[in-house]
Amino acid sequence: MESQLSLFYGLSFLTAVIAFAFAVYLYLWVKKQKTSNARIQEVSALIKEGANTFMRREYLVLFKFAAVAAVIILLLLPSPIWQGNPLDNVAMTIAYIAGTVLSAIAGKIGILVATLSNARTAEGAKEGIKPAFLIGFRGGAVMGLLVVGCSLLGVAAVLLITGNASILLGFSFGASSLALFAKAGGGIFTKTADISADLTGKVELGIPEDDPRNPAVIADNVGDNVGDVAGMGADLFDSNVAAMASALVIAQSLSGGAFANISMVFCYGILGLLASILGIATARVGKHGNPTRALNSSTYVTTGIFLVLTALATLIFDGFSWRIWGASTVGLLVGVIIGITTDYFTDDTKPIVRKVAHASGSGPAFTVLSGVSYGFISSLPAMVGIAVSALVAYKLCEPMGEGYAIFGISMAAVGMLSIVGMIISNDAYGPIVDNARGLAEMGGLGEETIRTADELDSAGNTVKAITKGFSIGAAGLTVISLLGAFMSEVNDALAAAGRELITGFDIMSPTVFFGVLIGASIPAVFSAMLILGVDKNAQRMVTEIHRQFNTIPGLKEGKKGVKPEYGKCIDIATAGALRELLPAGLMCIIATLLVGFVGGPTAIGGFLLGNIVSGLLLALFMSNSGGLWDNSKKYIESGEEGGKGSEAHKAAVIGDTVGDPFKDTAGPSINTQITVVSLVSSLASSLFVWFSIFS
Amino acid sequence: MESQLSLFYGLSFLTAVIAFAFAVYLYLWVKKQKTSNARIQEVSALIKEGANTFMRREYLVLFKFAAVAAVIILLLLPSPIWQGNPLDNVAMTIAYIAGTVLSAIAGKIGILVATLSNARTAEGAKEGIKPAFLIGFRGGAVMGLLVVGCSLLGVAAVLLITGNASILLGFSFGASSLALFAKAGGGIFTKTADISADLTGKVELGIPEDDPRNPAVIADNVGDNVGDVAGMGADLFDSNVAAMASALVIAQSLSGGAFANISMVFCYGILGLLASILGIATARVGKHGNPTRALNSSTYVTTGIFLVLTALATLIFDGFSWRIWGASTVGLLVGVIIGITTDYFTDDTKPIVRKVAHASGSGPAFTVLSGVSYGFISSLPAMVGIAVSALVAYKLCEPMGEGYAIFGISMAAVGMLSIVGMIISNDAYGPIVDNARGLAEMGGLGEETIRTADELDSAGNTVKAITKGFSIGAAGLTVISLLGAFMSEVNDALAAAGRELITGFDIMSPTVFFGVLIGASIPAVFSAMLILGVDKNAQRMVTEIHRQFNTIPGLKEGKKGVKPEYGKCIDIATAGALRELLPAGLMCIIATLLVGFVGGPTAIGGFLLGNIVSGLLLALFMSNSGGLWDNSKKYIESGEEGGKGSEAHKAAVIGDTVGDPFKDTAGPSINTQITVVSLVSSLASSLFVWFSIFS
Repeated sequence: MESQLSLFYGLSFLTAVIAFAFAVYLYLWVKKQKTSNARIQEVSALIKEGANTFMRREYLVLFKFAAVAAVIILLLLPSPIWQGNPLDNVAMTIAYIAGTVLSAIAGKIGILVATLSNARTAEGAKEGIKPAFLIGFRGGAVMGLLVVGCSLLGVAAVLLITGNASILLGFSFGASSLALFAKAGGGIFTKTADISADLTGKVELGIPEDDPRNPAVIADNVGDNVGDVAGMGADLFDSNVAAMASALVIAQSLSGGAFANISMVFCYGILGLLASILGIATARVGKHGNPTRALNSSTYVTTGIFLVLTALATLIFDGFSWRIWGASTVGLLVGVIIGITTDYFTDDTKPIVRKVAHASGSGPAFTVLSGVSYGFISSLPAMVGIAVSALVAYKLCEPMGEGYAIFGISMAAVGMLSIVGMIISNDAYGPIVDNARGLAEMGGLGEETIRTADELDSAGNTVKAITKGFSIGAAGLTVISLLGAFMSEVNDALAAAGRELITGFDIMSPTVFFGVLIGASIPAVFSAMLILGVDKNAQRMVTEIHRQFNTIPGLKEGKKGVKPEYGKCIDIATAGALRELLPAGLMCIIATLLVGFVGGPTAIGGFLLGNIVSGLLLALFMSNSGGLWDNSKKYIESGEEGGKGSEAHKAAVIGDTVGDPFKDTAGPSINTQITVVSLVSSLASSLFVWFSIFS
Repeated sequence: MESQLSLFYGLSFLTAVIAFAFAVYLYLWVKKQKTSNARIQEVSALIKEGANTFMRREYLVLFKFAAVAAVIILLLLPSPIWQGNPLDNVAMTIAYIAGTVLSAIAGKIGILVATLSNARTAEGAKEGIKPAFLIGFRGGAVMGLLVVGCSLLGVAAVLLITGNASILLGFSFGASSLALFAKAGGGIFTKTADISADLTGKVELGIPEDDPRNPAVIADNVGDNVGDVAGMGADLFDSNVAAMASALVIAQSLSGGAFANISMVFCYGILGLLASILGIATARVGKHGNPTRALNSSTYVTTGIFLVLTALATLIFDGFSWRIWGASTVGLLVGVIIGITTDYFTDDTKPIVRKVAHASGSGPAFTVLSGVSYGFISSLPAMVGIAVSALVAYKLCEPMGEGYAIFGISMAAVGMLSIVGMIISNDAYGPIVDNARGLAEMGGLGEETIRTADELDSAGNTVKAITKGFSIGAAGLTVISLLGAFMSEVNDALAAAGRELITGFDIMSPTVFFGVLIGASIPAVFSAMLILGVDKNAQRMVTEIHRQFNTIPGLKEGKKGVKPEYGKCIDIATAGALRELLPAGLMCIIATLLVGFVGGPTAIGGFLLGNIVSGLLLALFMSNSGGLWDNSKKYIESGEEGGKGSEAHKAAVIGDTVGDPFKDTAGPSINTQITVVSLVSSLASSLFVWFSIFS
């Protein structure tokens, strides 16, 4: 068995290298696509510069946070350095730093590729859907491959070197904590710029989306990169690492099957990456093809390949169980189902978006009320899906022995995330083509090209809704298995202290209940802090845009040679994002520690449950209502319900503005928030065992 | 001990009679206040007629529901009639019917008094704040006294006759299920009319709030009565009964202290009612006094009297424990604290409302975003308050023996609800003075009188925010103790089946977890269904109002003698409310049964937890954000941020419209929803023990 595990370590490294090589090939392919338009090159350079400046300043803030966190970890985790083995603390600290660095690199690579691909996609759109789609998609795929390659490599390396899966939690915490702040910061930046540009441009002046007269237009495009590309890359890197880490922590604790099960986790990671590579390589769209269908069908191809490959692996390898294959398959299929139901609520060819568009005719209050309502309802199928997949995975694997039930749930999460390479490619495609659309407009590439870019953009929006449902579902299953990992860490600490082990967290226990209620409020407060960040910042930027329109002569009228001061808007977005990105994340971490030191490990068990439940609910609600507002606005803009400029359109724009920070700032950050809180709990479990008021 | 209990039965009946007598005295006092203005009498009669018509039609629907439910209860509860003792089923059915009838009477009395007091309050306002306040407040107090008297009487009678506290759950379910539908129906009616009147009158035409030209104006005033008065009366009746019922179920199961503890529950109910009578009798406002302060200070007086009286009772009576007095006191104090924090978020003299008003200057999207954010944040103090009071009550009473810890929590709920007589009086005061303001406007009583009525109205709004916080907090504690009642019912059924008892609900168990996730989605879906009901219905009414303005000559211009067709709007509101009131409530009941039959009692344990947690979170969020939008609109109307007619005002009106169904339809119905679901679970517990797929 041990030799089989060595084989999988080797294969993990090899697959990562293959993914890197393929990414380099795609990168060079994108790079050699032509870019000739001077205006586009100029704007593209501005975007790139803005994005890089923001990332540099953001990473400086994060570096300081990570340095403080590293010192705390060195002193206190996994147990106070004066009590346990100091080498464990050193290993944990190094793993934590490695996690943060890899997460930062994932974000950085995303920016690099996205700012390279956007201009080329815009110019590709001159020749039609087919070449433009390929450039946009392959640009996104570079990021997908590198992120998944890095996570497989990182997890395998940490486990091989330390031999201790608990250290992986430190690695995962590094990745997650950085992702949390990067998403919050990027999310605030992008929506500040987006909202301000829309309100002043579209609503007040009635000028098009990416009109170069608008001082916020470059900031808006920078935002697509730093929020959607860099933030999302860091996020999915972290989800993937967390899913593997929790599966490995549980696998290592399984008596009698540790080696086979650890092998299995790596095997699924490897096959998922290989399936994604095949899916990416075969993604194509016909000359007049439908880009949405192309993106979705590559997802289905990847899913199919993964299921076949894992079934073969279960046949071939010693100790691989069909029950666990079943759990992973259930996870993956439920992920697909969640994606499809999300699509039902957010796609403008389906009834819900049209109902909201129709309600907009009666005024913005109805847009908001109907969007909130359908957003609430949309949470149900996903919650049921997660509940059912957890129940089925548990029941399927329970007969295998003690601990296997929770391992089954963690493998359902690994299954759901197996095709993450494909998911990231689809996700990164979105902001690239969004940018391309802006560049086509600003570069004056003509109506036809803009229409092509619009079509690509709209596909990006639809697919984004699906992948978001997917990543929320995966986060749900991952944190359930992290709850299992937490219990196993607590029991290790209790055993070391010679105290009675806990067998579970009873909701009739007052400390558990106490934790549940407080845990449930955290995602709400966290979301509110981020939304208020956007709110305040956008108010500042709107004031600045008004100032420019009023004081720069000829700007409003579009006089030739008159340019707005783009830099001022980028500065406002940057300064606001940097000021707001830490408090919300720190609040969650501090609340976790407070609850743990008041109520002990049982309160934390409840706290995690409350946090997961309300976090999933709010994340689904905010992502989906944001998506459906966005698409009902687009539906009206396509000429329905009175079309552009009608009262319905004005109401829909207000709905879209409300939805912007819902779907791109708060909603997707909650994933990471619940993961971070779960990891903090596991890491600090021995502290809670030693120091707490009640327990 | 048994003789002491007999004493408390006697005192319960006596106190109820005293409360009824005092209510009759106040009723006659209100009735003899003069009403002379012909126009006011005419409009007041229209309102009364509209309210009575709606109530009649609503009760017809509810009667059918109750009849079906009674048959099901007779056949199946507490256990299938062919298995257990048929007499139990008969007793349960009669208790259920008694609960529905008393709940219906509570609503009906509310309408009677409110439609009597509104015109008299309006005319009282001509003479100043002092007499008008007294009429409005005493009108509300009639309802408060009758509702609390009825609940004390009903609970005591059911327990005295049957001697079986479990039957009380049937009584409580009768009260709650009727309250659920009455609140949903009334809430949809009132907000349909309110939103439509505001959007067409204030926003489109710029005419004042209660202008008689507006076809929806009578429907709006009817709505205040059927939604805020009747719905609220049924609701607080049900909360009060549920709190006492769950405390009594647990008290009866306590070994060695059942009699003393049952006595204690009744004693607290009696003393709470006496304290409320004293508080009501002493409520006064000076000639130029502040009505908000008058309402709040009578609440504090009542609280103080209750604490002193219960302390004396603990000294005097055998077997009354100081620990339980402590638990009840903690509950009451936390209720007050939740009220105060709610006030901080919704009072326009405090910073939050002003920040939202300021944000409105940048457009409606900012109004909505900032209101949603502060609404989310406002949930934290209340959630922490409930968590801490449950934890303290538990730890305080745990040393008394097995079962006492949960009894402590239920007594914290009883404590929080002890002053409910006062709370209802304050709550019913609101819609009465709101109506009075409308009548003053429509009766042409002049600027000065309208200003007086406005001041009374504004006090009603502020106090409403506080009492809402109070009732959500109490519902939270009540359902925690109902969770305890559920476990004791399940164990009775398991013992009867000769199966192993359960000791708790472990969140690591997959069925519990399954239940938690689904339970958490229910309040979201329930709220969405109600909001969509308002949304659709208001769109229909807006269309009708436009039709009237466009087709009735001279209506818009206010030509003398031209009247709108008020009845059409009342019909639309009625028809819509009747169509939408059943589905949302039935969905919750059916979901509970489905989860129980799939996952068994453990899944229901999780389901209740998820339901409570997300229910509390959403109820707090929606009530508070609705309240703060309402008050920030009023703040702007008082001349701040540009005053009436400014862009900020338009944005604030949109925020208020979004908040209307949040705070008056969905938010306050969630209380009842979680109570109903908890009671259904307890009642059907033996069915889940016998029939379920997993368990």
